[in-house]
Formats: sequence, structure tokens, C-alpha cells
Amino acid sequence: MSLSLERIQEAAKRIEPYAHRTPVLTCGSLDRVVGARVFFKCENFQKVGAFKFRGACNAVFSLSDQEAAKGVATHSSGNHAQALALAARMRGIPAYIVMPRTAPSVKKAGVLGYGGRVSLCEPTLEAREATLAEVVERGGATVVHPYNDERVIAGQGTAAMELLEEVPDLDLIMTPVGGGGLLSGTAIAATETKPGIRVIAGEPEGADDAYRSLATGVIQPSVKPMTIADGLLTSLGSLTFPIIRERVERIVTVSEAGIIEAMKFIWERMKIVIEPSAAVPVAVLWERKIDLSGLKIGIILSGGNVDLGNLPWTRDNT
Amino acid sequence: MSLSLERIQEAAKRIEPYAHRTPVLTCGSLDRVVGARVFFKCENFQKVGAFKFRGACNAVFSLSDQEAAKGVATHSSGNHAQALALAARMRGIPAYIVMPRTAPSVKKAGVLGYGGRVSLCEPTLEAREATLAEVVERGGATVVHPYNDERVIAGQGTAAMELLEEVPDLDLIMTPVGGGGLLSGTAIAATETKPGIRVIAGEPEGADDAYRSLATGVIQPSVKPMTIADGLLTSLGSLTFPIIRERVERIVTVSEAGIIEAMKFIWERMKIVIEPSAAVPVAVLWERKIDLSGLKIGIILSGGNVDLGNLPWTRDNT
Repeated sequence: MSLSLERIQEAAKRIEPYAHRTPVLTCGSLDRVVGARVFFKCENFQKVGAFKFRGACNAVFSLSDQEAAKGVATHSSGNHAQALALAARMRGIPAYIVMPRTAPSVKKAGVLGYGGRVSLCEPTLEAREATLAEVVERGGATVVHPYNDERVIAGQGTAAMELLEEVPDLDLIMTPVGGGGLLSGTAIAATETKPGIRVIAGEPEGADDAYRSLATGVIQPSVKPMTIADGLLTSLGSLTFPIIRERVERIVTVSEAGIIEAMKFIWERMKIVIEPSAAVPVAVLWERKIDLSGLKIGIILSGGNVDLGNLPWTRDNT
Repeated sequence: MSLSLERIQEAAKRIEPYAHRTPVLTCGSLDRVVGARVFFKCENFQKVGAFKFRGACNAVFSLSDQEAAKGVATHSSGNHAQALALAARMRGIPAYIVMPRTAPSVKKAGVLGYGGRVSLCEPTLEAREATLAEVVERGGATVVHPYNDERVIAGQGTAAMELLEEVPDLDLIMTPVGGGGLLSGTAIAATETKPGIRVIAGEPEGADDAYRSLATGVIQPSVKPMTIADGLLTSLGSLTFPIIRERVERIVTVSEAGIIEAMKFIWERMKIVIEPSAAVPVAVLWERKIDLSGLKIGIILSGGNVDLGNLPWTRDNT
């Protein structure tokens, strides 16, 4: 096991000058509804509005000066793209972001706003990989994968480490799972810091590849995922899957209605903006599919990037 | 001048076991846009989602046991009604809330949810006052006006006091103005704590009675106010107006578009939910009607109670 708590502690030191130490919030009315005590680590308040900045920042600042000078590259149209662009700008190096030409213009604008250089490609996996390979061949940039990268996983684990520093006696810690970067980093940080702590992930029913992967023991591809939680569409990676298998108790799937209800409750009662992916572990409590009553639970609220003009509870009116 | 800093300090001690000490947040991207350094006192995170809890709580816990036993009463369909109901429940006494029968059912449900006793009346000022008088005559409850009450004004002033404890070197402090409870309490707390600090209020152009009152030197009624900032529809009171005249530098009016843009920016960048009234002082910066560049500015974000199913930036799509 090359990825240890020490790597996460190093990441925490490395990103400390650049990342926010996000607050931990609680909500009495949610606790009463779900019958547990919940501590929310608010990565929606993180730079670029998502935990992704931790991993990208750790990767960028792990590079030698020589490597760094050539820049970093990735293909992503989500929070990772913006996170990598910002981290690169902070180090003063270029970030090459490959995006499908069909990506929403607001996402391209986001990356450009953080100083990233966008290369558009056809919206297929082959085109994305070919375009990324071209970019790398041209300038020698270092590829930073959104989750299947030890530097990224170690960075994501720093959120759980901070949460446990503030609330050391958690019984259980929960995250959403997409590619598994946040979940595997969290699992290492939590189980190494506090042996015996339970780690559970929430996953949308309509994108349940991680659930099926754990059930079958083999990484299952994410085929035509259908969910509002657009940060959780990818399948697990070769690095994240073994960590999850070893350290995560189970993955609980939740319905779309549960995700939307949980998200709306958090907005209404906590007065904070979270994205659908962040509501997925909250929906595990909301739908009461497993009994977690009476426990002290930490939840990583993964991000807060939403299109305010297209909210799930107003769509029926349009 | 009977209302002194001492009364606000007493209020702070009195409400301390019941109210949240809300966080002060900053937003680098807003600072860059408006060219100032802004410190937000987040009363959207206050109990019942608004600063109103401070004043109601101070009033309820100021009563003698004998007075308190008979309960409290008010007419309001806004945040004050919920605030008074919750404060009364905390003291274990009844709260009688007179509301027009046309009030949205969600507002009635809110008051009932905090244990308030709702009396419905016709939607006229006369009917509201008559119904309130009846309630008081029947049981001897103490009336707690939403703003024209020294206990309430002192309670509202505690938010600015806390803000200045945390950021003592503010040049300027801003609030919205409706009936003037928050503004007058803030003005006393700020100018007594830090002589020379500037106090400015934002007011919607479509409900500019306070602006006209300052201009004419006489309280102007709020006639058919038209604004999305539904917490700012009332006119100034006999207690709040003299304080504002004495201590507030000016009132700046803002457009509806400015309020909505400022509100959306706060949601998108700060990932927090604020109500339109709270966005009004932000809109003063947003619209740059007066030059505040380079200053260190405190803003009281007054509340976060909004109907998520009916947001101003999605209405055009319906």
C-alpha cells in the first residue's frame, strides 16, 4: 500500500497556503429529522466551489520545478478542470484542459476565467484521449487525472483529516462516489486516523457502477448513467477501487427524488448552496435505507456549483 | 436619548444563550468586482433565518415573569412573526400572531411550526390592529412591535456589535432599511463603539419611503411599495426615524435589477442563500451609485428566507 496517511499529511501541508480550511456546520432540524448528529465539512466553500481543488493543488505543487515549467493537462469538463486551472495559475504554470466541444459555455468560461487553456475536441472518449495525448506530446505537460492519481487521492483525503481534527469522535464518515477519488482519500484518512471508524458512500441509483463494482469484485463501467448528480457519472479507477474495497463498509444507492429533497432541505434550513452530488450522502440519511440512528456522522459536502437558472424544484414549472 | 450602547450590550448578554453568534464571511471575487473589502455578518444563518430573532428574543426575555406569563403578541406575516414565536417557545410562554388571512400558507405553517398561535384577520391595517387589540384585551399579552420598540432595536444592534468585535477597523457599515429596526440598532452600536464610522443604508427604489423621509425630515408613509425585497415594505417608526436622522449618513436607493444581480452573485460565489432584502446593501456596491472604493465595509446580511420554487432568475422561464 503506497498511499498512506503520511502522504495525506504531506498534502495537507503542501496545500495549506492555497486552499481554504473549510468550516464544519451542523443543522439541528436535520438532526431531528434523520435521528443522528451530522457534521458537514463544507467543501462547497472551497476554492472553485468544490473539494476538487485539494487534489489538483496537491498534484500541481508536488511537481519539480522542471516538470512544472511544462505545465499540467487533463480532460475534464467539471470541477476538476477549474480546480487544475486555478492551481496551475497559483504556481504560475500553464494548464491545458481538453473539453468536448459540446460542453456548456459556462464551463468553458469557468476554466478560461481561471487562466486555463482550453482545447476542444469531439465528444467521444477516443477524441478526448487523442487530443490530450497530442497536447502532452507537444509540450511535455504532466497529466493530472481527475481521480486515478495518488497525488489527487492524497489531496482529497485532507478534507476528512481536517474534519476529524475538529470532530474526533465521529462514528461514521460519508461521501458521494463517482470515480472514487474523494471516497478513497477519505477512507484512508479516516481509517488510519481512527481505526474502527465506519466509511460509507452514497451513490445515485441511476449511476450505480461503484455499487455493482463492490458487489462483483470487479470494476464495472458506468453505462449511460442517468442522474442529476452530474459529478458522479464516471466509473471507479484502478487506484481507487482497491482502496474502496479494502476500507469502505458499503455503498448505498439513493433515488433521484431523495437527492433533490435532501438538497432542497439543506438549502432551506442551512441557507447554503450545495450541488446535487453533495446531497447524495445526505440522501442516504434522508431515505433511511440503512439504520444510522443515534450515530455521530461526518459528511463531506463535495461542492456547490449549480446552474441557478435551472434548479430541479423549479423545472416542473417551466 | 434613552437608547444607549449599554442597552445593546445588555441585549447581547440576554440573548447569548439563545441566538447564534453568526459567522463573518468574505468573498474575494466580490471584493475585486466592487473595489472594496467587504465583511458579511451572516444573519441568514441566525435562528429562524433572519436577524429578527435578536430583537424578538431580547424583547421576550426582557419581560418580568409576571408579564411573560401572559404571553406576547404581534401582527406580522414575515420573519418577525416566526422570530417572536420561537423566542416565546424558548421562554415557555404563548405567542399570539395576527396575520392577514391572505398570507401564504407557508408563512402560517412557519409560525405554527415554532409553536405560535395564529389569529387570522382581513388584510387591512385596521383589521390587523383591531384583531391585535382584541387578543391583548383578552389575555393581557405584551405587544412586541416588529421594529418600533426599544427592546427590539437594542436586540437588532447586537449583530453590528459582534461584527465590530471581529473586524474593529471598518470604515463603513451598511444594512437594508424597511421599518428601521436593524438600521437604527446598527447605527447606535456602530457610532457609539467607533465614533466616526460611517453608516449607510440601502433601500429599493420601489419602496423609497425612508429615503424620502430623510430628504423631507418627516416620516413618509410607504405607499404601494413595489419591490422583490419583501422585508422592506414598511415605513419608518417614531422611534427609529430620529435615530436614523441623527446617525445615518445617507440612504441609497437601488434598482430591482441591481438587487437581483447582487443576490445571484452572492449565491453563486459565496454559496450561501440570502433573501432579496439582504441583497439590497450589496446592490449599493454593485450599482456603484456612490464611491466607496478602497473602503473596509461591513454588511449585515439580514436573512435567508426565500421561496426556492420561485426565484427571480427563473421566473422569466415560466
